[in-house]
Parts: sequence; C-alpha cells; structure tokens
Amino acid sequence: MMHTVARLSEADVLVKPSPVAMVWNEPDRPLEALAVPGIHLSAGEALVEIELATVCGSDVHTVLGHRSASTPLVLGHEQVGRVVALGPDAVRSDGSSLELGDRVVWSVTVSCGECDRCVRGLTQKCRSLAKYGHERVHRGWELSGGFATHVQLRAGTATVRIDEGVPAAVAAPASCATATAVAALDAASDRVDLAGAVVLVTGGGMIGLSAAAIAVEAGAIVVVSEPDAGRRAFARRFGAHAVDPRARVGAPDRLDAVLAALTGGGAAGAAPVGMPRDAPREVLVAVEASGTSAGVRTAVSTVGTGGVVVLVGSVAGGTELCVDPESIVRRMLTVTGVHNYAATHLERAVAFLERSWRILPLDELVGPTHALAMLDLALAEAASGEHIRVGVAPGRRAAT
Amino acid sequence: MMHTVARLSEADVLVKPSPVAMVWNEPDRPLEALAVPGIHLSAGEALVEIELATVCGSDVHTVLGHRSASTPLVLGHEQVGRVVALGPDAVRSDGSSLELGDRVVWSVTVSCGECDRCVRGLTQKCRSLAKYGHERVHRGWELSGGFATHVQLRAGTATVRIDEGVPAAVAAPASCATATAVAALDAASDRVDLAGAVVLVTGGGMIGLSAAAIAVEAGAIVVVSEPDAGRRAFARRFGAHAVDPRARVGAPDRLDAVLAALTGGGAAGAAPVGMPRDAPREVLVAVEASGTSAGVRTAVSTVGTGGVVVLVGSVAGGTELCVDPESIVRRMLTVTGVHNYAATHLERAVAFLERSWRILPLDELVGPTHALAMLDLALAEAASGEHIRVGVAPGRRAAT
Repeated sequence: MMHTVARLSEADVLVKPSPVAMVWNEPDRPLEALAVPGIHLSAGEALVEIELATVCGSDVHTVLGHRSASTPLVLGHEQVGRVVALGPDAVRSDGSSLELGDRVVWSVTVSCGECDRCVRGLTQKCRSLAKYGHERVHRGWELSGGFATHVQLRAGTATVRIDEGVPAAVAAPASCATATAVAALDAASDRVDLAGAVVLVTGGGMIGLSAAAIAVEAGAIVVVSEPDAGRRAFARRFGAHAVDPRARVGAPDRLDAVLAALTGGGAAGAAPVGMPRDAPREVLVAVEASGTSAGVRTAVSTVGTGGVVVLVGSVAGGTELCVDPESIVRRMLTVTGVHNYAATHLERAVAFLERSWRILPLDELVGPTHALAMLDLALAEAASGEHIRVGVAPGRRAAT
Repeated sequence: MMHTVARLSEADVLVKPSPVAMVWNEPDRPLEALAVPGIHLSAGEALVEIELATVCGSDVHTVLGHRSASTPLVLGHEQVGRVVALGPDAVRSDGSSLELGDRVVWSVTVSCGECDRCVRGLTQKCRSLAKYGHERVHRGWELSGGFATHVQLRAGTATVRIDEGVPAAVAAPASCATATAVAALDAASDRVDLAGAVVLVTGGGMIGLSAAAIAVEAGAIVVVSEPDAGRRAFARRFGAHAVDPRARVGAPDRLDAVLAALTGGGAAGAAPVGMPRDAPREVLVAVEASGTSAGVRTAVSTVGTGGVVVLVGSVAGGTELCVDPESIVRRMLTVTGVHNYAATHLERAVAFLERSWRILPLDELVGPTHALAMLDLALAEAASGEHIRVGVAPGRRAAT
C-alpha cells in the first residue's frame, strides 16, 4: 500500500487508497468494511497508519455479547502504528510535537484534561470521556478503533513514541494490557514497597503476565496462580519465582504450601534456590487479573497485614465477593480497583517494553496474525482462549 | 490521695497508698481490686497516675462476652494521667525525655520498633505487640490498663504530653477514638484531598463524631448518617453539614436526597446555605464507623469514582459485605481497613484536641463519671449505649 501523506492545517486529509475500518454490529453477524475517503484533522489530531493491532479480552467480551456496546462500532484498542498526517498542534504525551513518521502507541482513553476527575488524575474517568474501540461510529470519527487501516487520534489522547526496534507484537498491547499492569502495580506501590515483597498474581493472561514481569523487575518475589499449563510456563519465563495451578480455582491450601516454600514460613522449610533467606513472611500484594470469583476470593484471603489487593480483572459482571469487614479492619487490608490507566502508566509501559523485549518472550504472547479482511476469523480465534493474543495486521494480504 | 514519688534507676518504685487496678475475669462477675504494692520500672518505662479513664466500645464488647480476652485482665485504654515515676531513658513520642509531672496520653499499643511491620510503619501490628487494656495480668505488668489508679507505661509506647488546660474528658479519648479517627482520615487523604471533598461518616459514636469534626476542619463537606437523634445533634454541633437518620439502617434513597441537596446534583436543587455552589458531585470518602452491615453496605455503595471507603468500625464479627468486584474496578474504588493507629496519629489527635476543645463540645461526649470502685456500674452504664462515653476517675470518692 502506498499512501499520500500531508501536513495540513484544519483541512481534509486525503489518503489513497481510502482508509478502511471494520465495523461490528452484533454477535454472529460478519463485520463490514467501511471506507473513509476523506479525514478532517482538527487541532491536536493525527492520523496513524496501523502496523499491528491485537485482540483484547474485552473485544471478545463485546463480540460474544457479554457486555453492552454502542453499535455500529470499530473495535480494537491495542495497536501500534505510524503517524501519516497531522492536524495543527498535535502533541505527544510529554508535550513535544508529534512528527510525521513517529511510530506510536496511544491511550485507550480520550480525556478533556480540565474536569474535576482529570484534575484529580483520573483521566480515564473524564467527564467527557471517549474510548478507542468503544464508540459508536459517527461522521467525523469513523476511524475510532484499531481494527482498521488507520486510526484518527483525537486531542486529549496520550500518544507515546516507541522504538523502531521493538517488535510490533510487543508494542501493540502496550496501550491496554501493559499500561494497565503498570497502573495496577502503581496502585499497590502506594502502600507497599515492591522490592522484596511477595506478590501474588491471580490469572496468567496478558495483564497478569505483564504484571508478573514488571513486579519481578521491581524486585518482588512473584507467585502466579493460573490453571493453564501453557500460561504457567510463560509466567516462569517472565520471571515468576513460583507458579500454582489450582489457587485460582479455589484450593488455597495448595497456595499456602507454595507461599510457605517461598517465604520460609511453613512445613516446606528452606527457601527455594534464589530466594532471600529473610524473605518476608506475608503476601503483601495481590494483583487479581483473572476476573473470576475464585481469583478475587483467593487474592483477598491470602494477603497479609497491611497488604493491598488490586482488582483489575473484574471488568465483566456475574461475580461476587463476600468478605468479613472485621478481617479487612484487623488486617488493615486495602482493596483497590484499577480500570484503564493514566498517561504516565502508558509512558512507563513503553519504557518497560523497550528495555525488556530482548530478554523476555513478550513477542510470543501474540499467536496467529491475520489480515484485516480476516477479522472475523481473528476474533473467533481470540474467543477460543487458546492464544493470549491474536494479531490483526492491515498490511498483510488476506490470503496469508 | 498523697503519693510518694521518686526517680529511681532500675529500681522499685514505692507509691503509697499502693496502686490499685480493677481486674475483670468473666461476664457477669464483679470486678476485683488488685493492690500492687511495688512497681519495678525498667529502662524506658514510666508510672502514670490516672486522672480520668473513659470506657470504649471495645471494653463493652469484652465485658459482654462478645469477643475473647485473656483473663484476668485490667481493661481500659482511653485515659489521661500524670507521670509520677520514671525508669531510665523514658521518652516522649517525639524523642524528648519524659519528665515527672508531665500530663500525658499514650498509645494503646506497645511496639518493638524493629520488626518488619514496625519498619513498614505498622507499629500497631508489631510482631511482639502488647496492648493496654488487653493483656492478661502477669507479674511485673499488673498495671496494664486504664481502669486503675496507675498505669505502668512500657518502652515502645508512644507517650504524648497534653496541655494542662484541656479538660480530662476531652483528653482521655485521644488514645483510642480520636487517634483512630485521625488514622482513618489519613488513610483517606492518601487518595483524596479532603479539602472540598464530600465525606460521608456512617455511625455517630465517638470515632464517627471525631472523624466528622476532623474532616470539617480539613475543609470537607461532611454528612453523618446515624439513627440516634442525640448523636445526630452532636454531629451538627461538631460541624457536620448534613445528617441523615436512616442511611445507616439501609435506606440509601434518603441518603441520595441528602447528598443531592449537598452536591447540587439532584432534585433538591440549590446547595444548602454555606455550601459552595461548585461542590463536587460525588461522595469521595466514606468513614464507616458504625460497624454495622448496613453502614458498610451504604459506605461501599455511596462512594463515587476514585473514592475511598475507610472501614474502622468493624472490630467485631458477625457482619458480611458482599460486593460486585466489577463495581470496585469500574469506580476505581479503594476499600481500606484501619485498626488502631501509629504514633503520628496520636500526636495529631492531641494537637487537634488542644486547638478544638474550646470551640467544640468535646467534653459533653463523656456522660456520668464514676469512682474506680464503681467500675461495675460504669461498665453497665456504658453497655446501655445511652452515653457516648462513661468516665472512671480514680481520684473521685466512691460515694460520688
């Protein structure tokens, strides 16, 4: 594909061939290609050509009809691309000017920066929030999701450059899974110093594995609880000090033994190889990334005095947590919910990926990658749960 | 009572007449007076003559058999007194030397200062914790609770001087209710700026009223939910901007109307007199001081995006909180338990009382005050729930 690119002030951008977005309407109905022949870029906006998008679990939730959505809709909010056109005054998250040719990732959220929530730092809960991959298609912002040849970035989007060397499969998930994992650990580190702390991660999907790797880098002793053997193997390769297959599905006794072995506090006796002998005796952080009732229950019941449970996986209904408030008081426990992230977390996610992609098998988390025209297949494959991520590459021929 | 006082190094202290502590054994059995003729003060210790003790709700829980206790036991952990003897190197919480004649309050906890929890700032959860009013009487620390003529302060106790002018009824609760209220708001202010925030306090007992007054001083817009009319009247006099009689017992619709009126977000329309017109639209902090299921439920369901629920009242079992984890995630809610407090909170509690006792009716929170010999009566009166606090004054004649 060859594109004509231009820097225009308050004017239409013409890209040839026309940008195309894949529009989702309802479960079990094939997606439809929408051609968007002219794009008007206002102040602060940019047009990005997509290199690779990945299918997030929440895209799958929507496609399966497990949550409501404003349709018709262009899904996709994990992607990497290159700036091909600029409106006036488009900036990166650090305030510097966006440049044509920048390879970028961007926040899932578009925020005003001025309302009470933005001022409090909760830009992801902006009073006039918009979200990539979540908006009903409308005139002027058809290119609002990652499953497209191009995305139109709006003012108020945190846009971050990423090194050319980082594989696209590593870069694409930055704007959802990696940044959310950074935000989750940030919430925990408000209360607990991660260095030397025992961190339990329940759920070994993209967020859980990312959180595990980030916590290991921060000096934590990390246990990943995940029933799938393949995901546990990834957790080990991401640096987890221990993995446990059953805690997530409700066998805390097994987890107790794992933790006792790690912390030297139980029958298992000596600390495992590589573990400091004076390792702390309590789990002080749990990152709950499974979204399951059992995962939430395990996280809340396992964390010790003064510890923090970060709930990040529970983004769909149907689960319930019942807890004795006295236990929260006496343990001085903190349970905190993290949803999406702020610009700083995306910046730190990109920095983490740039320094980690050579040493961690991050690229292997993305399984098969399909052409945009094969998006139905890609979504079905993602829904199978067989792969941690499935890729969608607009530049790839449909036959591939 | 005339006392012989002495400063001795590593030696016995003789006080005449002998100090007396009231020993509690089990529910429905009268307390017994225990005379302690000689006290040995080790390094860092001090002997304090009690001016006034107050009966905390947790003393009542114990006396009624609602929680287990190591007996025989000297109850009482809210009190003010005067230093009458010193072991070597006894210090105040700020590190300065304790002096004979200091009028002091002190922490409910005795901490080592060196274990992992103390180093993390959780001195109230010290690995070798002792608590005034909670320890089985044993040789060498008979004077371990406030319901006595004297208390033997141990090394590792945060001891804070309090101005001579502060009424004893105001000073005594510092070491439990006031310091805990400070700790609760401290936990909230980690996440939310109290100035201008709407703060809901569920439960208008000693901790709830203290929290309301402290939050008002910090610039918050405070709503107190409490079914008892007398306590609601106190809440108003402590500066609460609104009170609500029913939310605590499970009628959030009524609370909604109160909040709408306060925040200008509902049918009630205009903000009440004295309320800023641009008051924030969400409750961002709830201090749950009732310890009831309904209070916890109301607190968790009322707080808005990015808000904090501080659980502080749930110190007895029998309640349960069931919550949808998705709601915690999407609201980015934090639920945190506070139990007791650290030295800094007691220091701030004393400073608050010193600057507030002339302008707030703090002394009126203590109802009848009885002689030490009438402790059975004092505990029964406290258990009636009629008074927010009942006092016990060793210097008072039994006939009073």
